[in-house]
Amino acid sequence: MYYFDNNSTTKVDIDVLNEMLPFFSEYYGNASSIHKLGQISKKKMEESREKIANILNCNPNEIYFTSSGSESNNTIIKGIMKASGKKHLITSKIEHSSILNTCKSLENEGYKVTYLNVDEFGTIDLKELKKSIKDDTALVSIMFANNEIGTIEPIKQIASICEQKNVLFHTDAVQAIGSIDIDLSDLNVDSMTISSHKIYGPKGASILYVKNKVKFNALINGGYQEQNKRAGTENIAAIVGMGKALELNYQNRNEKNKYIKELRDYFELKLKETVKNIKINGNLQNRLSGTSNVTIKGFDAATLVIALDMRDICISSGSACMSSSILPSHVLKAIGLDDSDIKSSIRVSFGKYNTKEEIDYLIMSIKEIVGK
Amino acid sequence: MYYFDNNSTTKVDIDVLNEMLPFFSEYYGNASSIHKLGQISKKKMEESREKIANILNCNPNEIYFTSSGSESNNTIIKGIMKASGKKHLITSKIEHSSILNTCKSLENEGYKVTYLNVDEFGTIDLKELKKSIKDDTALVSIMFANNEIGTIEPIKQIASICEQKNVLFHTDAVQAIGSIDIDLSDLNVDSMTISSHKIYGPKGASILYVKNKVKFNALINGGYQEQNKRAGTENIAAIVGMGKALELNYQNRNEKNKYIKELRDYFELKLKETVKNIKINGNLQNRLSGTSNVTIKGFDAATLVIALDMRDICISSGSACMSSSILPSHVLKAIGLDDSDIKSSIRVSFGKYNTKEEIDYLIMSIKEIVGK
Repeated sequence: MYYFDNNSTTKVDIDVLNEMLPFFSEYYGNASSIHKLGQISKKKMEESREKIANILNCNPNEIYFTSSGSESNNTIIKGIMKASGKKHLITSKIEHSSILNTCKSLENEGYKVTYLNVDEFGTIDLKELKKSIKDDTALVSIMFANNEIGTIEPIKQIASICEQKNVLFHTDAVQAIGSIDIDLSDLNVDSMTISSHKIYGPKGASILYVKNKVKFNALINGGYQEQNKRAGTENIAAIVGMGKALELNYQNRNEKNKYIKELRDYFELKLKETVKNIKINGNLQNRLSGTSNVTIKGFDAATLVIALDMRDICISSGSACMSSSILPSHVLKAIGLDDSDIKSSIRVSFGKYNTKEEIDYLIMSIKEIVGK
Repeated sequence: MYYFDNNSTTKVDIDVLNEMLPFFSEYYGNASSIHKLGQISKKKMEESREKIANILNCNPNEIYFTSSGSESNNTIIKGIMKASGKKHLITSKIEHSSILNTCKSLENEGYKVTYLNVDEFGTIDLKELKKSIKDDTALVSIMFANNEIGTIEPIKQIASICEQKNVLFHTDAVQAIGSIDIDLSDLNVDSMTISSHKIYGPKGASILYVKNKVKFNALINGGYQEQNKRAGTENIAAIVGMGKALELNYQNRNEKNKYIKELRDYFELKLKETVKNIKINGNLQNRLSGTSNVTIKGFDAATLVIALDMRDICISSGSACMSSSILPSHVLKAIGLDDSDIKSSIRVSFGKYNTKEEIDYLIMSIKEIVGK
């Protein structure tokens, strides 16, 4: 299998899996149990939390474990809005569905949402953001980097504006964490979501960072787990695996990202040489290293995805989370592509397990398919 | 390790783990991706859903996968209340914290909750239930069997009352599913929660059954997964593992339950012979096969739990989810035990991996500790 859909999900690193294995049938205690088997689980969970806090540069008690990026985003957005007493929040038009549909569910409950525009590269306008903040605004939620086109948003400037205006700032960093060095002490966001399965960790695990001062209501009520903010028996194997995945992601990150960027650039160079009328989408000056979103003008992307699939090549025509949707990509629409170009756009996303030889096969296959 | 805390969580069956393993680093596709690797995940997920639906005797599209029993309970209780437009629900005083604290969070939003009493055996009063149902009642939520004392509630009668009165009925069957044969076509509940890690499956996985006619709002908004009712990349390894765990739970269930009940009865018989002044709590005529809740009058349960732990024996003094709480067990309080007896009560819960020899060691250890 030739897998170029690493923005959708990644293969679990064998070192991550090996860290997880003892927590299924050997150290299977409930971390809330006071006996030895429970305390082993608790200790391992807290070690993972400390490891993660050290890497991200925050306090361990600012790290909450949940089951997915979607759960983390729902938890913090609904949780902050309900705790704030205010009724307005601001996000962008190119967020992940777990942000956009959470906003829609809040609108159904009477909240007001401003959806910021982006320019042709997918970057939000800081002046529009400033103007949109009102007395009743509790929260701004802007993604760190876009999952479809890879554009990186000006997070530090947004954080600074939010601080001046005294509103909270959440960033969905699910797609960013694999490629960008994140130092929370420098970044000054109030909360942040990370997902494990985008960085060679297991599915079913996410980190929600929330600064200590931030008040938010729990989404899942019940037992006293996670400082009474997220009930449910702790998924130790996943938590330990996610800690290891983040650690591996952090190690040799510069070399790894350089390697992935080289693969991406090689792909785009070769593609331009091979296929006429292509356009690369997103902010080419400020983009995630592994993401390539390309419009092959006049060629149906779905046909290409399926034809490549016949050759055991996995790419996508957009976000996996929206693949059941018949709607065209809201991200490509927001950066100004017309419907025809949106239907001709593919997302090819590279990871640490990809090789140049695989890309040669991909290019050759695209040439044969598109050439026909 | 001598593990007698199977109501808290269970060891993952090696057959379950083996089913899960390919879905970490081999078949790691996102089930929402349309390419081959994604479709393998989707196929395996739907096979698991069908297997589960066959065992429980319902339609596959009535099965929703979530990350924990707590998430399932939160999803359905909040989801039904918000979709119903009504403001009143009914539960019992001995529910799991994920029901009780969800009810409390709804009370904070203006909903009204009736908490039914139970008798000295932990059984709810059907007459009180009938009287409590009003025009504004949308939902009744009563657990199938209690996690601390094992008492089984009259679910079919409750379902029948709810049907007559035209209110929905949810049952939290997290603790019951390991010991009780559940046939949904016969049971007539509107929704039900099951957790994987109580039946030798992985943590981080739960089944929420919801009858097709029932309207409920999603708790986690985002992508279109799970019929648009539960966003988040599907945790295939856990879903496949949970399906296998339920299948194994179903196979040889009568023999297995007979074996576990024999262990439990042997323990209680030997304990009575060994220690004076003991009282077994719960409904002795209608109890989960593996649960034993015992008051050793005048002896501090926490001391016993810790002293047993020194001998590598794991038992508990109540629900693991409440272990960080300094409050005495709400279940034992509801069945009428005074504070002194509550503090002298232990929960010993047996599973398929326990043996008679282990129980002999447990009894000997209790004798030595309590005798001192």
